[in-house]
Amino acid sequence: MPLLDWCRHYDRATLAQDVGAALIVTLMLIPQSLAYALLAGVPPEVGLYASILPLVAYGLFGSSRTLSVGPVAVLSLMTASTLGQLQLEGVHYLNGALALALMSGGWLLLFGLLRLGFVAHFISHPVMSGFISASALLITLSQLGPLLGVRLEGHQLMALATLLTQRDALTLATLAISAVSLLMLLWARYRLQAMLLRLGVGKAVSTALVRLSPALLVVVAILLSRALDLETLGVALVGEVPAGLPAWSWPRWSALPWRALLLPSLLLALVGFVESVSVGQTLAAKRRQRISANQELIGLGVANIAAGLSGGMPVTGGFARSVVNFDAGAQTPAAGIYTAVGIGLAGLWFAPWLSALPKAVLAATIVVAVLGLLDWRQFHHTWRYSRTDFVALALTFLVTLVVNVELGLLAGIAASLLLHLYHSYKPHWAEVGLIAGTEHFRNRLRHRVELDKSLLCLRVDESLYFANAGQLEDIVATLVSVRPEVRHLVLQCSAINRIDASALDSLLMINARLQLAGIGFHLAEVKGPVMDRLQQSSLLDSLHGQVFLTMYQAWNGLTTQPEYVI
Amino acid sequence: MPLLDWCRHYDRATLAQDVGAALIVTLMLIPQSLAYALLAGVPPEVGLYASILPLVAYGLFGSSRTLSVGPVAVLSLMTASTLGQLQLEGVHYLNGALALALMSGGWLLLFGLLRLGFVAHFISHPVMSGFISASALLITLSQLGPLLGVRLEGHQLMALATLLTQRDALTLATLAISAVSLLMLLWARYRLQAMLLRLGVGKAVSTALVRLSPALLVVVAILLSRALDLETLGVALVGEVPAGLPAWSWPRWSALPWRALLLPSLLLALVGFVESVSVGQTLAAKRRQRISANQELIGLGVANIAAGLSGGMPVTGGFARSVVNFDAGAQTPAAGIYTAVGIGLAGLWFAPWLSALPKAVLAATIVVAVLGLLDWRQFHHTWRYSRTDFVALALTFLVTLVVNVELGLLAGIAASLLLHLYHSYKPHWAEVGLIAGTEHFRNRLRHRVELDKSLLCLRVDESLYFANAGQLEDIVATLVSVRPEVRHLVLQCSAINRIDASALDSLLMINARLQLAGIGFHLAEVKGPVMDRLQQSSLLDSLHGQVFLTMYQAWNGLTTQPEYVI
Repeated sequence: MPLLDWCRHYDRATLAQDVGAALIVTLMLIPQSLAYALLAGVPPEVGLYASILPLVAYGLFGSSRTLSVGPVAVLSLMTASTLGQLQLEGVHYLNGALALALMSGGWLLLFGLLRLGFVAHFISHPVMSGFISASALLITLSQLGPLLGVRLEGHQLMALATLLTQRDALTLATLAISAVSLLMLLWARYRLQAMLLRLGVGKAVSTALVRLSPALLVVVAILLSRALDLETLGVALVGEVPAGLPAWSWPRWSALPWRALLLPSLLLALVGFVESVSVGQTLAAKRRQRISANQELIGLGVANIAAGLSGGMPVTGGFARSVVNFDAGAQTPAAGIYTAVGIGLAGLWFAPWLSALPKAVLAATIVVAVLGLLDWRQFHHTWRYSRTDFVALALTFLVTLVVNVELGLLAGIAASLLLHLYHSYKPHWAEVGLIAGTEHFRNRLRHRVELDKSLLCLRVDESLYFANAGQLEDIVATLVSVRPEVRHLVLQCSAINRIDASALDSLLMINARLQLAGIGFHLAEVKGPVMDRLQQSSLLDSLHGQVFLTMYQAWNGLTTQPEYVI
Repeated sequence: MPLLDWCRHYDRATLAQDVGAALIVTLMLIPQSLAYALLAGVPPEVGLYASILPLVAYGLFGSSRTLSVGPVAVLSLMTASTLGQLQLEGVHYLNGALALALMSGGWLLLFGLLRLGFVAHFISHPVMSGFISASALLITLSQLGPLLGVRLEGHQLMALATLLTQRDALTLATLAISAVSLLMLLWARYRLQAMLLRLGVGKAVSTALVRLSPALLVVVAILLSRALDLETLGVALVGEVPAGLPAWSWPRWSALPWRALLLPSLLLALVGFVESVSVGQTLAAKRRQRISANQELIGLGVANIAAGLSGGMPVTGGFARSVVNFDAGAQTPAAGIYTAVGIGLAGLWFAPWLSALPKAVLAATIVVAVLGLLDWRQFHHTWRYSRTDFVALALTFLVTLVVNVELGLLAGIAASLLLHLYHSYKPHWAEVGLIAGTEHFRNRLRHRVELDKSLLCLRVDESLYFANAGQLEDIVATLVSVRPEVRHLVLQCSAINRIDASALDSLLMINARLQLAGIGFHLAEVKGPVMDRLQQSSLLDSLHGQVFLTMYQAWNGLTTQPEYVI
């Protein structure tokens, strides 16, 4: 348990820093928790509950010093999408949210105990980025309802259409609140700090103020809402938030299509893990700390199980709040535990106040928060760097946006695996020659190299396995047929990392054919592991040629005609 | 159409050779066709019909000069297994066989027109060999019934059990016929030729006689069966074989669960194609001819469609008969067409005679024929060469044997793809050093090399992509943490054939971390295609080091302390 090694030297200074950070994160977390509960379609208090016990659980089992867990935008969207597709209503919907938290917690814990931290790697960066961007768009669309004060039905894209039919339902008050909130938040986000600095406010303080602006907005909104009795003006409020601490909870499995939740909960677990680990690694790197993927799986698993057992919803390490926690000087996971206490007290004392908060304000905070997740530059960079990766990114983005988040993610993962296989199926190859003045051999088409009429040096840039073994046979057959003067063929194996049984058969076939054609077949720069395998085969005995340590030795050993430069 | 180029110079000599070969193949094909029809569970004449029009069709469209198509053991087994699982009976069963031939023909033609010849590569050699061996066992088991003259129900492995319950059903006559047939065939196969040669018979003639021994056995069996009226002794005979030529046929789709046939027909097509292409390539190579995978797809596709339209069953290029055709001196596909004529005439004139043939004799010919397909040595070789390939082989073998042929093949294909991915996920890496007297760098653990305390040369033996990108970060982090004296890290990229967007992010991360640690990050021997991509990225600009053409130049440029030998 990581707990042990930071507990030992926990002194007053650390305590002070942790408590300070906890205070700021608490203030930031209260509106966020309510907002993401709204987004997930569960009662507001569920968001608060998900920010209490899970934080303690992660504090005890997680490996990151500064990660701050709780409800996050993308997981809330996935929760809403999953439970929406199952058409669960009211108490069953809440029941489903609990089950999702417990099940994804179970998956994470299972992977952690089996030390399967690597599963995260199978969501490639382009897939993740396409998924996050599409999610951000979906989240924004889903908040149009609360922002405009109308109920939008069906898929988020359809919702836009239904919007037109509801012009009359729009209420001026709601529109005004939304507009003001959005403007204030955007202003705070992009202008406030510069202004404060100009006014001579310290960097730390101004940063904190910017981070707390949503909380301030919420306080102001609550006061106004009560003073002006906005509800009578047709403004939708958060409504009754029961005061008190979360109670023990357990989903009623009998009332649930829990089999249908197996896959969605697995995807929730994966996305939560990938997001959390990337945040954790970034922050850990800044302080020369390391986090253990497997320990993270356990920490997040226990946190989600805690959420499911205390009336919460799926949680993971959030980016924004972790950065705040980090900047505010949190030193140990204890900060998370103090934050939990803070949220608990808030739940006890301020819950009744929150009921007066207009939903539009929360919607505005969500929209401004997810704006940062939309990363169009990534689309551009990926397109420039690799069309293949762009295909995976675009596919994930489109399927997520148009169909749903589960399919979007699955399509992305499948596509990136298939594209990877496709690449290795048609290997890149080059005829190589000696670069004058060195012992180095490179592609004759890219470098000025020495060649030998009777000596064909071939480099194949791929491990040889069943899918591309046939290609090599064709390449050699073609090259030899167009170069009747060739007496020796040297295969440079520096890029061949593996030769499977099918490819071994192809090499034997090539060897046999070259022998019939009176052409020597030589290998050079064979890697140790590959050589170990070949020694277990009949190739080396039947080889109609030699195995050279280096291409240069092969060249010296086999070159016959005076070399000439091309 | 390949037809055109051999037609042009078709002279009398070629005609004579083709007709001679056709004669021998015809005699060999008649019992085979009946036997494989029996194996597939269709009436005997279906086997004959499948050996007429399809041969003509392949002769016109196929690219191999000597391949002889027709019913083969493995496809007959797959047909029986598929139709058996669908519990089709009588006319519906025959209907299903026609549909399978048409549909697999359709798949083959489709792949051929789309030039997807490479699909064959996705069945790896170990998978194919495990599949063939298991099929051979299943076929042998399936022939126990006819050999013992009892009806065996259920899965072939179960059948063995039911055997014990039917001791009383055994008839002496059938057992005697089976025993004699098996002994004669085995003797002919393993002893006859040596004896004939000792008697001074020519090689060609003796070979032909050995190959025709099954046909001779059939003739003898028919004569005996008529003379002794074996049927009255309780011997099961082939029964009524209608004389005449195949009639036009078209499956009654309405009466078929044709959707359930889509996957099985695809697998039939794949297996038939892989088997046929490997035979065709072996024979073509012997005569310095080449066959085109895509043309083969078209030829086999048309042949199967012809089979489906003329009351036949799925066909492909068979090994045994193609070898006979080749040895007997067939020069062009015309030989196949003459064979078709031969079978046609046989169907017209000898059909009534065949009815008296005991099934036990056909079963014996099948068993002896498939014995050659059982390849235990392959198990041993694969085990020795690569455990991974052995897993794929063993899995295919077991699932095929215990569950069914479709699943066996699918499991094998899936396993080999996943195992391939698994290999690239944990890349092999090595710290390399300079081999004295050369400019070549190799693994310090395998070779005696020069090293430099302050210079860490790392070679990673895998393309870098999303699944293994994280690994590289860990490897570098670990190496650097245990070697505080390192000032420069050189990544030898000779084995890196691709760097995808996720791996690019990892390299940027590694570069940033090394920079913070004051360690130079250099690349050497980057391949052209990889460099082209990197130039589209920000890595080269932000690189805290240089890109060297060769490791040796990096070594000369960066080595500081006097080199010492380890």
